[in-house]
Amino acid sequence: MTRRVQLISVIGGRWIDEPTYKIAYNVGSAIIEHGFGLVCGGYGGVMEAAAKGASEAKVRLGITHLPIVGILKDETGKAANQYIEVGIPTGMGVARNALVVMAGSGVIAVGGMSGTLSEISMAWQYGRPVAALVPAGGWAAKVAGEPLDTTRSDSVFAAENAEEAIKYIAEKILHGAG
Amino acid sequence: MTRRVQLISVIGGRWIDEPTYKIAYNVGSAIIEHGFGLVCGGYGGVMEAAAKGASEAKVRLGITHLPIVGILKDETGKAANQYIEVGIPTGMGVARNALVVMAGSGVIAVGGMSGTLSEISMAWQYGRPVAALVPAGGWAAKVAGEPLDTTRSDSVFAAENAEEAIKYIAEKILHGAG
Amino acid sequence: MTRRVQLISVIGGRWIDEPTYKIAYNVGSAIIEHGFGLVCGGYGGVMEAAAKGASEAKVRLGITHLPIVGILKDETGKAANQYIEVGIPTGMGVARNALVVMAGSGVIAVGGMSGTLSEISMAWQYGRPVAALVPAGGWAAKVAGEPLDTTRSDSVFAAENAEEAIKYIAEKILHGAG
Amino acid sequence: MTRRVQLISVIGGRWIDEPTYKIAYNVGSAIIEHGFGLVCGGYGGVMEAAAKGASEAKVRLGITHLPIVGILKDETGKAANQYIEVGIPTGMGVARNALVVMAGSGVIAVGGMSGTLSEISMAWQYGRPVAALVPAGGWAAKVAGEPLDTTRSDSVFAAENAEEAIKYIAEKILHGAG
Repeated sequence: MTRRVQLISVIGGRWIDEPTYKIAYNVGSAIIEHGFGLVCGGYGGVMEAAAKGASEAKVRLGITHLPIVGILKDETGKAANQYIEVGIPTGMGVARNALVVMAGSGVIAVGGMSGTLSEISMAWQYGRPVAALVPAGGWAAKVAGEPLDTTRSDSVFAAENAEEAIKYIAEKILHGAG
Repeated sequence: MTRRVQLISVIGGRWIDEPTYKIAYNVGSAIIEHGFGLVCGGYGGVMEAAAKGASEAKVRLGITHLPIVGILKDETGKAANQYIEVGIPTGMGVARNALVVMAGSGVIAVGGMSGTLSEISMAWQYGRPVAALVPAGGWAAKVAGEPLDTTRSDSVFAAENAEEAIKYIAEKILHGAG
Repeated sequence: MTRRVQLISVIGGRWIDEPTYKIAYNVGSAIIEHGFGLVCGGYGGVMEAAAKGASEAKVRLGITHLPIVGILKDETGKAANQYIEVGIPTGMGVARNALVVMAGSGVIAVGGMSGTLSEISMAWQYGRPVAALVPAGGWAAKVAGEPLDTTRSDSVFAAENAEEAIKYIAEKILHGAG
Repeated sequence: MTRRVQLISVIGGRWIDEPTYKIAYNVGSAIIEHGFGLVCGGYGGVMEAAAKGASEAKVRLGITHLPIVGILKDETGKAANQYIEVGIPTGMGVARNALVVMAGSGVIAVGGMSGTLSEISMAWQYGRPVAALVPAGGWAAKVAGEPLDTTRSDSVFAAENAEEAIKYIAEKILHGAG
C-alpha cells in the first residue's frame, strides 16, 4: 500500500479578472473531487483562487488528507495565501517555477503572462501532461491544442472547463504521459 | 483562521544502525503527536525511520491532516520511501538539502555524516532552531550544545531523546527563534 | 575602474540544421567583437555554434579576457562542448535554464524548442532585453517583434542577423532595459 | 586542445580580521600563479581578499585569460565586489553556496563561520578536494586534518599557508580526488 498523494500543479497569473478567478476556483475544486492534492506558486490570483477552491472542496467533502501545497519564492514562506496548508519556501524567486511544475503529476494552466508561459514550457520539458483552460485566455489559451515542439507526440490539451481539464490529466496520469 | 501546517525537518544519514533507526522513528512519532507535519529528504535511513514513525503515529492517533513530506533529489520523485505522502521533486541533487531545512520551522538532527553537517549549518544560517539527538552520535552529537558561530545567540540544542527535541523546537517556534 | 565583464546569453536548441548553426556562430562572433563575454547552456547545437563563433573571434582578434561560459546541468561539468572555457556545473538539470538567462545582461535567442521558449519567457521576467533571430525560425521567430505580456513596455526584438541582434542588446544595456 | 580553465573555489567568512584578509589575498594570488581561475561567493571578507589577490596577480604576471568568478546571491549580480570579473547571479541566496563549491575543481577554505562549514561539507559530498588554512582559524581550522565522514578515504588537508594549499589541490586535480 502506498500512502503517496498525487499532486496536480495549477499555474496562472497573479493579476486576474473575476471570470478567470472563477475558472481557477473550479479547477482547485475539481482537483480535490478527483482525489488529488494541489500544488501552486502559493500567492495571489490564479494561485489563490485554485487554493480556495480546493480548500472549500475539502470542507464540503470532508476530505482532510489531500494537501494544498505552495512552492514559495522566499526563504521563510510567510507570505503565502491563506489557503496554502503546506508551504515549501525555496529562496529561489522566479526560478522556483521549475519546482512548481515538477511537483505535479500533471499541470493545469489558467490564463497567464510570461511566468505562466515559462511554466507551461518547463512542464512540457519535464514530460508532464498539460491542460490549458481556453476560456481564461492568456498564454494558456494561446498554446491550447498545440504541441510546443516535436519532442513529444501529444499537445497541450485544450479544455473548455475545469472538469474537462482534470479528466484529461487524470487519464494521462493513469495511462502514462508525454 | 489559518490552515497552515507547521513542518519540522528531520535530517540524518542514509546508512544507520538499529538504535539510531529507533531514535529517528521516535522523532517522527513525536512530531505528529505535537501537531506538526514532517519534512525530510525522502529516502532511506533516518529519513525513512522518521517518516515511518510519523506514519504510524498518524494511524494510531487517527490524524490525517498532518503531511509527511519528502524533498527529493530527482525530477520525477519516484524513488521516495514508502512513508512519504507528499513528494516534492527538485532535480537538484545534493543541493536540495537547502530546501529540506528551509521547509521546516525547526530542524531535528539524528546522527549524520557530511550531508547532515551541511544541513545543520544551513539551518543555522536560515535562522531555524536546531535540536540534535545526542545518543545517536554522528555530526549531530558533535555539535550538540554548541553555537555554530557568533551570528546567533543560541546553540544547537542537545536533546537526550525525541520528546526533549520536539519540546525544545515547539517552544522556539512559539516564542521566536534564531 | 571596474573589471566586470558583461555577458550576453545565447539560447537555442540542441538539434539544429546547418543554416541555424551558421547564424548562431555569427551571434557568438558578434558578441566578442562588441566587447562582451558569452554565456550559454554549454552543450550542443546553438550553444556549441555560438561558443565556437566566440572562440574563433577571440583568436582572430587576439582577445583573451572575454570568457565563454557554460552553465551546466550536472554536478561535475565534464560534458560541456569543447569551446566552453568556464564551466559552471549546477546539478539542477533543466532548472538551470533560469541561471543561463540570468547570467546575461541581455539574451539572444536562435531557433529553439520548448526549452528556448522557457528561457525567453524567464529572460522577460528577469527584465533582460531579448533579441530573437527571425531567419532561424523556432520559438524565437514566433515571438520576435511581440511583447510577451503587459509587464514590460518593450517587445522581443526581431533581428534579421547577428549584427542587428547584438547592436540592439548593446544599446539596451547602455541605456537601461525593460 | 581544450580551452577549459580549471577553477578553484575560495570560501570563507564575510567579516574577517587583517591577518585572515592577508591569508585569503595570498590564496587568490597563488591560484593565479598556478594557472587556475578563481571562483567565490563574490562579496566581502575572504571573498574580496582572494579576488583582490587574484586580480593583482593577473596584472603582475600579465595574465588575462584566467577569470575571477563570483556566484552571487541575487538576480541581478550588481552587488559583487570590485575584483569580480564574471558575475553569475543566481537569485538563490544562501542556497547558492552549493554552486560555489561545485564550480571549483578543488576548494580552499579560509576561516569561516556556519556558511563556510556548510560549504566545506558540501564540497566533501561533491567529491572535491578540500584544503583548509590552519592559521586563519574558524571552521576551516577546526576540521583541518580530519575526514568529515567515512565516505571518502582522504581528509580535509591542513595547510599552513596559501602555497601549501594550492599545491595540494593542484596535485589532487592532476591525479584524481575523493
